[in-house]
Amino acid sequence: MRAMRKKALECKDTDKINQFLTDSEIGFLGVADEEYPYVVPLNYIWHKERIYFHGANAGKKAELMRANSKVSFTVCEELGIMTSPVPAHTSTAYMSVMIFGQVKQIADWDEATEVMQKLLDKYVPGYFDRPLARSHVEKYRSKLGSPTAVYCLTPDVLTAKESPLESDRKFEVGMKAGKK
Amino acid sequence: MRAMRKKALECKDTDKINQFLTDSEIGFLGVADEEYPYVVPLNYIWHKERIYFHGANAGKKAELMRANSKVSFTVCEELGIMTSPVPAHTSTAYMSVMIFGQVKQIADWDEATEVMQKLLDKYVPGYFDRPLARSHVEKYRSKLGSPTAVYCLTPDVLTAKESPLESDRKFEVGMKAGKK
Repeated sequence: MRAMRKKALECKDTDKINQFLTDSEIGFLGVADEEYPYVVPLNYIWHKERIYFHGANAGKKAELMRANSKVSFTVCEELGIMTSPVPAHTSTAYMSVMIFGQVKQIADWDEATEVMQKLLDKYVPGYFDRPLARSHVEKYRSKLGSPTAVYCLTPDVLTAKESPLESDRKFEVGMKAGKK
Repeated sequence: MRAMRKKALECKDTDKINQFLTDSEIGFLGVADEEYPYVVPLNYIWHKERIYFHGANAGKKAELMRANSKVSFTVCEELGIMTSPVPAHTSTAYMSVMIFGQVKQIADWDEATEVMQKLLDKYVPGYFDRPLARSHVEKYRSKLGSPTAVYCLTPDVLTAKESPLESDRKFEVGMKAGKK
């Protein structure tokens, strides 16, 4: 892995990175394909320093991951557009994390159920009044007939970048260059 | 390109797709790399049925695109989480577009300036009271000394998927399964 070019933007704050990955709702899985890379948006959890997500056991994403388990996962949150009287200095405030690692399907249904429970806890907190049953996860078939597959991405490399919002530069509709 | 698996989610409404790509603020460029695919979040414009974005003329992204111009670009907006009494039917409402195509750097500074103007019009509308000067774009050097590069991605394939929000199923904090 080459070093990050814009070192000034690098974030090394592990707590901040963990919180960011815990709270963000959508990540973009990058999978190699023959012609073009395939990038698919996903809900996920960050748990035990790994990314977990689920999907069908069939289809393009599942096939590509079986063919090549080296994937990436990018999470980005935009915080606002920052103005400048110099047009080229207009920039975006954001935090982003890129993870590069190995993905594998979880074979153990207890572990898969634990992940599905944590996905529910993240995305519909408090909605269900009892724990998810392993049998529900194991027996579920989609409308297209495929079982649920739960995947675990173990990072080989994780990089984070941050361009913090300078609130006095944040663009709001109606703002004009050179006027306060 | 294989056909989409979940045909029911496919969106064929060209006007809707154009509006979605015009309005969305962030896209995820997927570029091939030796070991792991590289996925980078970007601001962009959708113009003349092409994706345009800018970046430095140096660094990982620029080098990877020079090495392999077949890239993808994914845009996704989440509209909410949809509940169901059946845990496995919990789902996300979203619209997403995937573009697969060829990226090239724009060599003509008039065209590059037009793109940079349209980026300003999209992200800081009304902020500048005069048009961007070609000389500003051409002469600008980043803090790291690299000139601006403007890229054009011409789609070979574009697919869109939509899982519309059913408002009576939308999760709100405090909701419980089986209760209205």
